[in-house]
Amino acid sequence: MLYLVGLGLADEKDITVRGLEVVKKAERVYLEAYTAILLVEKEKLEAFYGRPVIVADRELVESGSDEILAGADKADIAFLVVGDPFGATTHTDLVLRAREMGIATKSIPNASIMSGIGCTGLQLYNFGQTVSMVFFTENWKPSSYYDRVKENVQLGLHTLVLLDIKVKEPSLENLARGRIVYEPPRYMTVAQCAAQMLETEKERKEGAWGPDSLAIGAARVGADDQKLVAGTLKELTEVDMGRPLHSLVLLGRKAHDLEKDYIREFAVDAATFEASWQKGYGATS
Amino acid sequence: MLYLVGLGLADEKDITVRGLEVVKKAERVYLEAYTAILLVEKEKLEAFYGRPVIVADRELVESGSDEILAGADKADIAFLVVGDPFGATTHTDLVLRAREMGIATKSIPNASIMSGIGCTGLQLYNFGQTVSMVFFTENWKPSSYYDRVKENVQLGLHTLVLLDIKVKEPSLENLARGRIVYEPPRYMTVAQCAAQMLETEKERKEGAWGPDSLAIGAARVGADDQKLVAGTLKELTEVDMGRPLHSLVLLGRKAHDLEKDYIREFAVDAATFEASWQKGYGATS
Repeated sequence: MLYLVGLGLADEKDITVRGLEVVKKAERVYLEAYTAILLVEKEKLEAFYGRPVIVADRELVESGSDEILAGADKADIAFLVVGDPFGATTHTDLVLRAREMGIATKSIPNASIMSGIGCTGLQLYNFGQTVSMVFFTENWKPSSYYDRVKENVQLGLHTLVLLDIKVKEPSLENLARGRIVYEPPRYMTVAQCAAQMLETEKERKEGAWGPDSLAIGAARVGADDQKLVAGTLKELTEVDMGRPLHSLVLLGRKAHDLEKDYIREFAVDAATFEASWQKGYGATS
Repeated sequence: MLYLVGLGLADEKDITVRGLEVVKKAERVYLEAYTAILLVEKEKLEAFYGRPVIVADRELVESGSDEILAGADKADIAFLVVGDPFGATTHTDLVLRAREMGIATKSIPNASIMSGIGCTGLQLYNFGQTVSMVFFTENWKPSSYYDRVKENVQLGLHTLVLLDIKVKEPSLENLARGRIVYEPPRYMTVAQCAAQMLETEKERKEGAWGPDSLAIGAARVGADDQKLVAGTLKELTEVDMGRPLHSLVLLGRKAHDLEKDYIREFAVDAATFEASWQKGYGATS
């Protein structure tokens, strides 16, 4: 059996009791570690589980799935995924491959940022489609996300923006020299995301949002040092939310008063928050 | 401290290790039991936790929050919520009340149906806003959900439909006689939901969906007997998904081939699934 086990959002204790039972009994345990990260090191997981964990990088998962699945027709293999196994990054390809090989699969759900973002007090019912924000470079500033956020904005819905992480990315400079050397990991901050959004709006000029649009920055959802900050996009470009992971929610115009009551506690500046709210938010029904 | 602890979706072992620690140490433990249910009895939870659990019905949570919060400034109180504490049903009012009383709060995330529905193989990125379906009666068939689903349909997005549950609802007949007697609990099935959707479409006639629209029924997500069925709405009106809880996903037209590869395994009838897919689905990009 192939078990896909969700680890939740913050640290080693966010695994479920059922998930921990699977990990303890499995023949091999892989940790998917390139689309999201826990806030603890692999060594801490191993100490908590009382057994070794094999880190599965992108290459292993995408090209070496037969290695992961070897023997899974007879023994149990656990594949650990930060968040939920079918959350922001789905592992449907691994399951499809298992199916082809006649290997049974089972997934152990856990918290995902897609629902964990409810900790902001915003109602998950009021969210439209989720988008991802990649790191812009000098020459590559993809803005296709803009169209999807704009669809949400037009419907008055909130948008969850998931922020890029770069883990074990080969350095282009070194690749050119025929050597594989990895860049240090990078995690997009709320401030970077807000700045990129304003940059895209400047280029698109369709008014989906602007410097006064309200948004919420969320850092380390579910951890003891979880931090939430509400403010205008302009304010958020200057906010320091601390260590990763970060996410951002662009507030939809149909936000309710109950949502407002909850989030204003996190306002960078109560006065600008109130002024921005009065200009463009609040459910009419 | 008031702890809001997510219990996850299926049974007593879906609590996280961190959540279990909180439950074991708290002075009082409440179980919110009117907006969602676990698939196990309260007694099983109590045996697993090794301590008593107080069932919190709607009345207690909405009118008796001070009773729940009593002493939470000095001791730890745990409030258990099926799924995630801020998932489909948010408990922001309880947190707001705690804030007013100067009581610190902390939430322990867990799987919610809002992300757990990813087990269908459908990408959570491709979902629009979530809607709820209530039990229609002879004289009350609210169709406001239709407009929101239609917005998703027009964008080509999937829609998660959460199905009504009626737990501890006073019997109207007995209320009239001045006695409070509760109706037996009722849980909407996938078949009832599909039938109600077709009924609404017949009334609205705006073509947001029809008998040949593809949908997925999901029952007991995360449990050992989790069941997924893909088919047309017409087919789903006749499907028996077994015991609760059920949910339904109306497929968006922009569904990918990878999503198709995953869900066709659950098709009621491979031929009608393929025919319906060819007529209206598949991402163009």
